[in-house]
Amino acid sequence: MTLDAVLARIDDTLPDALDRLMDLLRIPSISTDPAFKPDCARAADWLVADLQSLGFDARAAATPGHPMVVGHGGTGKRHILFYGHYDVQPVDPLDLWDRDPFDPELQDTPKGKVIRARGSSDDKGQLMTFIEACRAWKHVHGTLPGNLTIFLEGEEESGSPSLIPFLKENRAELSAELALICDTGLFESAVPAITTMLRGLCKAEFTIRAAARDLHSGMYGGLARNPLHVMSALLAGLHDSTGAVTIPGFYDDVAELPDTLRQQWQSLAFDHATYLGDVGLSHPAGEQDRTPLEMIWSRPTAEVNGMWGGYTGAGFKTVLPGEAHAKVSFRLVSNQDPSKILTAFRAWAEAQMPADCEIIWHDGIDGAPASVMAIADPAFEAARQALTDEWGRPAAFIGSGGSIPVAGYFKSILGMDAMLIGFGKDDDQIHSPNEKYDLASFHLGIRSWARILARIA
Amino acid sequence: MTLDAVLARIDDTLPDALDRLMDLLRIPSISTDPAFKPDCARAADWLVADLQSLGFDARAAATPGHPMVVGHGGTGKRHILFYGHYDVQPVDPLDLWDRDPFDPELQDTPKGKVIRARGSSDDKGQLMTFIEACRAWKHVHGTLPGNLTIFLEGEEESGSPSLIPFLKENRAELSAELALICDTGLFESAVPAITTMLRGLCKAEFTIRAAARDLHSGMYGGLARNPLHVMSALLAGLHDSTGAVTIPGFYDDVAELPDTLRQQWQSLAFDHATYLGDVGLSHPAGEQDRTPLEMIWSRPTAEVNGMWGGYTGAGFKTVLPGEAHAKVSFRLVSNQDPSKILTAFRAWAEAQMPADCEIIWHDGIDGAPASVMAIADPAFEAARQALTDEWGRPAAFIGSGGSIPVAGYFKSILGMDAMLIGFGKDDDQIHSPNEKYDLASFHLGIRSWARILARIA
Repeated sequence: MTLDAVLARIDDTLPDALDRLMDLLRIPSISTDPAFKPDCARAADWLVADLQSLGFDARAAATPGHPMVVGHGGTGKRHILFYGHYDVQPVDPLDLWDRDPFDPELQDTPKGKVIRARGSSDDKGQLMTFIEACRAWKHVHGTLPGNLTIFLEGEEESGSPSLIPFLKENRAELSAELALICDTGLFESAVPAITTMLRGLCKAEFTIRAAARDLHSGMYGGLARNPLHVMSALLAGLHDSTGAVTIPGFYDDVAELPDTLRQQWQSLAFDHATYLGDVGLSHPAGEQDRTPLEMIWSRPTAEVNGMWGGYTGAGFKTVLPGEAHAKVSFRLVSNQDPSKILTAFRAWAEAQMPADCEIIWHDGIDGAPASVMAIADPAFEAARQALTDEWGRPAAFIGSGGSIPVAGYFKSILGMDAMLIGFGKDDDQIHSPNEKYDLASFHLGIRSWARILARIA
Repeated sequence: MTLDAVLARIDDTLPDALDRLMDLLRIPSISTDPAFKPDCARAADWLVADLQSLGFDARAAATPGHPMVVGHGGTGKRHILFYGHYDVQPVDPLDLWDRDPFDPELQDTPKGKVIRARGSSDDKGQLMTFIEACRAWKHVHGTLPGNLTIFLEGEEESGSPSLIPFLKENRAELSAELALICDTGLFESAVPAITTMLRGLCKAEFTIRAAARDLHSGMYGGLARNPLHVMSALLAGLHDSTGAVTIPGFYDDVAELPDTLRQQWQSLAFDHATYLGDVGLSHPAGEQDRTPLEMIWSRPTAEVNGMWGGYTGAGFKTVLPGEAHAKVSFRLVSNQDPSKILTAFRAWAEAQMPADCEIIWHDGIDGAPASVMAIADPAFEAARQALTDEWGRPAAFIGSGGSIPVAGYFKSILGMDAMLIGFGKDDDQIHSPNEKYDLASFHLGIRSWARILARIA
């Protein structure tokens, strides 16, 4: 069987693949620091050359910032785009590193061999798993494993300022039928997983105004409306005693979790005690009748992110303030519409204002909806089976409580769903000193992509 | 009748009294600015000399700050202490003054003649009303109007740092049977009044802590406890739907207003619409079944003076904070005990903490109780009648929503009640540029003291 030949080739040439990754890791492509701009260009050129050596028609496309690497190659039943990023985080504080962040080394640790360097996990090691899978495939078959577009960004760690314009300007070239994104991790560092739902987000900042100026609580306390009391009552009423959000219509467009996903999530046996324990907590505090995974992946939220008013400095001032302020955000799921949610929130809040109080809204009504991938597409189940085969345990479709912007842009600008598959672990120390990538993540990651491409491309 | 002779003498010699006040106003006794320390000493010496000229045994008593003027003289049925302060506020911004703040002038205005100068109302003009009353009395009778101690402070506008130690060190000398304090105003600038109840105050600052650090609302939102929600619910629960404070036992030591006071307050016909309208409000927001004057004078309060947590800067951060903070104060009345109230508040708050939340208290349990004068003492009714006679309209016993510290110290250190009687008006611009004191306030103030002393001393 030819897949076996590809997997054997991957095993046999792992030291060479590691050498190539080391070469790429030696380039300090820190995107946020202008001093490293030539290094970013050098990393892009290195990748273009490597892709060209595999037969890709590849180029480094200039942007106002760092170049985008784009390569096309192969033929297959569906057009697939692969995304990764070649830029890395800064390395400060440098004195906390045990060695030069850009002098990579394979190290033995009690937990196994690791590749130690800035960018080893985020995201150079991960993106090279895909390219190495293509290389082994090409060696065995003489062709690339499918109709592929490789798209590697150089600004992911600095806010992706060129990403949206580049996607819009190159929509025809970049629009494929499915995206693969390799920038995430194994579930709980162990279970292979495909992220298929990402929560959306919308935000509101507002002021409740009562008196025209701050008042003395001796002269006015007990008589004048205190906007801090009004704000407290408003925000306290955002949730009922079961933890549900009380805004009328808030749950109208929230779908129940499909039974297949519910079963998969149950089988993950999420260790919420450890997840909460890591930050000093022990009790799930969300909707009473939901599991912890539902709370963070598939249920919408209303969270107060900031609140302030009156005297907040050292000591005491018996002021009765004229204003109170808050920032509130909503994580969205399913088909919840950001502007509909914000409109409902505004109406709900304004209806509660007592005499002498008004709300001033500080921002417009916008936000991003949730990304929910169409997992009925057989490619999702095929990829899940491939991951299950490679890792020897059932892979799962999982959710993400936060948003991963590029997945949303692929959907909104290029009109395609994305499968987010990655092999990082929680202890990879990405963005921190002594970043590492397990050699096993690299090796099994390459093998995983070979299996996935054999099934879906 | 000899009181008539005293009043006639006051009328006849008003220009001389005004000249003396002008002399005192020319001394720039700004207590907070060390550059004016010699001027403060000069003002004290001026007053000592003036008191000595009336037969008082007077001296300027040194303190670590500015001197206290103390004088004793006369005989009478009860020992009375009079308090005022000879120091004044700074004059900045000087360019907003129409003339030199320390070059006093009698000016004609559409509302009548005013004495324009820093300190004219607060408090040199007021304290001189009492001394001039003594002077006229002495001229007519050959003796002072009673057994009097005059006590004039020089640090009232700079926090009174020497006051408590001085009262404690000179307790025997200063303890009288009743204090008279002239540092307040007419009720609504028109009604003569004696302040007989001052609210007390106690304060609590605390933190509600949940997670050990700030969390990402994508990763933890919906699962982890948000202390801003907990703080909102706690503070929203401080009052019930009728505006009453919900802390168990909060009202245990609150006395109902005596019927005599209730009738007097009703007859004041307090214009709460204007009082609230001046600060942009229109609705009394306190306990439903209380009048506006009760709300600010005779009812206790729980007010949030400051509240903060999470991200409060420009823009947005979808943080789920680990902590929320608040400063809460209570205005106290009747026999409410500050430490009892704070203990009850702490217990009430802690009982509401959900799992994973704790409260950290940032201060000790202290505060000042309310000052409630024993108006059954006939001197109060006598003084009220005297004021009624002079001003041609019923004088009232009123309250004060804030505290006037010296009245509390006279009670707690010297064991005597105080009658707070003053003749200032709301438009006197004390602490501001172009301070003034109505000539009528000065003139009728002197006459008022003559009438009061005739009845009570």
